[in-house]
Amino acid sequence: MTTENRQWQLASRPHGAASLDNFRLVTAPLVPLQSGQVRVRNRYLSIDPYMRPRMDDRRSYVDPQPLGEVMQGETVGEVVESRSPHFKTGDHVLGMLGWQLYATAADTELTRIQHRSDVPLSTRLGCTGMPGITAWYGLKHIIQPRAGETIVVAAASGAVGSVVGQLARQLGARTVGIAGGARKCAIVKDEFGFDVCLDHRDPHFPQALLQATPDFIDGDFENVGGPVLDAILPRMNAHGRIALCGFISAYDAKPTPLNNFVCALLNRVKIQGFIITEHPEIWPEASTELADLVASGKLHYRESVTDGLENAPQALLGLMTGANVGKQLVKLA
Amino acid sequence: MTTENRQWQLASRPHGAASLDNFRLVTAPLVPLQSGQVRVRNRYLSIDPYMRPRMDDRRSYVDPQPLGEVMQGETVGEVVESRSPHFKTGDHVLGMLGWQLYATAADTELTRIQHRSDVPLSTRLGCTGMPGITAWYGLKHIIQPRAGETIVVAAASGAVGSVVGQLARQLGARTVGIAGGARKCAIVKDEFGFDVCLDHRDPHFPQALLQATPDFIDGDFENVGGPVLDAILPRMNAHGRIALCGFISAYDAKPTPLNNFVCALLNRVKIQGFIITEHPEIWPEASTELADLVASGKLHYRESVTDGLENAPQALLGLMTGANVGKQLVKLA
Repeated sequence: MTTENRQWQLASRPHGAASLDNFRLVTAPLVPLQSGQVRVRNRYLSIDPYMRPRMDDRRSYVDPQPLGEVMQGETVGEVVESRSPHFKTGDHVLGMLGWQLYATAADTELTRIQHRSDVPLSTRLGCTGMPGITAWYGLKHIIQPRAGETIVVAAASGAVGSVVGQLARQLGARTVGIAGGARKCAIVKDEFGFDVCLDHRDPHFPQALLQATPDFIDGDFENVGGPVLDAILPRMNAHGRIALCGFISAYDAKPTPLNNFVCALLNRVKIQGFIITEHPEIWPEASTELADLVASGKLHYRESVTDGLENAPQALLGLMTGANVGKQLVKLA
Repeated sequence: MTTENRQWQLASRPHGAASLDNFRLVTAPLVPLQSGQVRVRNRYLSIDPYMRPRMDDRRSYVDPQPLGEVMQGETVGEVVESRSPHFKTGDHVLGMLGWQLYATAADTELTRIQHRSDVPLSTRLGCTGMPGITAWYGLKHIIQPRAGETIVVAAASGAVGSVVGQLARQLGARTVGIAGGARKCAIVKDEFGFDVCLDHRDPHFPQALLQATPDFIDGDFENVGGPVLDAILPRMNAHGRIALCGFISAYDAKPTPLNNFVCALLNRVKIQGFIITEHPEIWPEASTELADLVASGKLHYRESVTDGLENAPQALLGLMTGANVGKQLVKLA
């Protein structure tokens, strides 16, 4: 039996783009298992975009990857030794077992994979695992595409984007993929069945996006950000939905103040624009409730009343500079 | 009976800040009513922030205010003459009747006001009318505050913001108002009952916001935008909600490309950040469905497989530059 493990550790934090210097390959002895522990021989390691921002020392939804410890990451592997009643040698398991050949883990950290001969093991880290489930949730729970709608997916050849597009098409949506370069665009169309794929490296990309979305964009599955998102936003349809999944364009940049959308993702914020005249169904309830509150003295208000029609323009100009308090009115004497 | 009307028309479109030159006061004769028409003597004209962007010639959710026509705006008034069976002289009505003393309108354009002696007529344009209903909808339907949550409201002394804060407090939320200057801040606290009010003109405003939100921000009713929103966003709590209602900070600026949040408002877009590991309840359903799709050949996937643990860092660096197609894996031979 092997007594030696090899693992990658984070040696230093990047400034701007990550480089090989930031990683260190280490050899270490395997220590005997304690009760409840399982030894796993990792077969596949998943490499995901989230790993890059975690190399930075910055507040996020999880703690940063610690320096000098094994790089965090999901693997599928095979149990080679067990001191747990729940796992036996030969079981296939999934876990956050890190960038290493062998993992020594508590049995509570492992998920058993139900083996299916028609579902390759490696896809448990891809289209049937976390990336596929990410696509499934963002599309079905946030974007909720209806038949005939136009859905845009950046990084359409990637692990997440390729699933988003196929699921959207199965729901009857028109799918517009975005990818980098002719080779990826061909795969997105021919293999993943997107209706269109645009190359974001094309200098005419913004115009190409307009032409590819004659009925505007109803849903955007956003995992890139940057100039691609800047082109998508003004093209959104009324009542469009954007699922913020990732911002790979920002991960490898020099540290800068977080942009607004990155903040929205990190905090899982819902942002919704609304125009009150589009919701006539709530007007009777709302206006009655508000009038009752005024009548009972429970809703206070202020009015800034400008006297005379001739002064109406000044009233509007004043509103722009904050001259008013409360509701700005013009009294038409 | 008066035979003359006075009205403000849009004379020219602003470049940057609007000025009095953009408006023209016109006198015109009142023409006889046609069947179904009603003459209204406007008593109060509402002056609202939306009027400023409508002076520009730009695609939006409504057409721009036409040049040389009466400025659009909501009024409350009194019927002075009627050729409609639905309205009689003396009725109080509400309508988009414009910046003018008299309006000649089809009866279908008017809403009768149920007179209540305990609800002042002018509030039908303010806290019990469109601005109040805007506050009610954005707060109750989008932000949905829970007791104990922290809700931030910019332009807190305004027609909309003052209602948002009071309704939020009645729902048990902690309310942090933002306003311009000490006088408005005092009104926001003393009269509208916000827990705190911050002056956005204070050079230490960003730090003051941190101190005023020790438990972060759960909801933001956004009607200002600009640097105030930039300070709010990084302070949002996990699963926070932002109702995009308006961007008064952008309305009077020189024409520039629309910023991302203005686009989101104009198109009534819902933007939602999500982290897939926070939704464990959907994993079994999603992974089974995806595995079935793979097994039946209905879900295509690509893998970029890097061979050997020693090459894992290159695999991550390649992912940052788009070297992969589909899921990036490392095979641990």
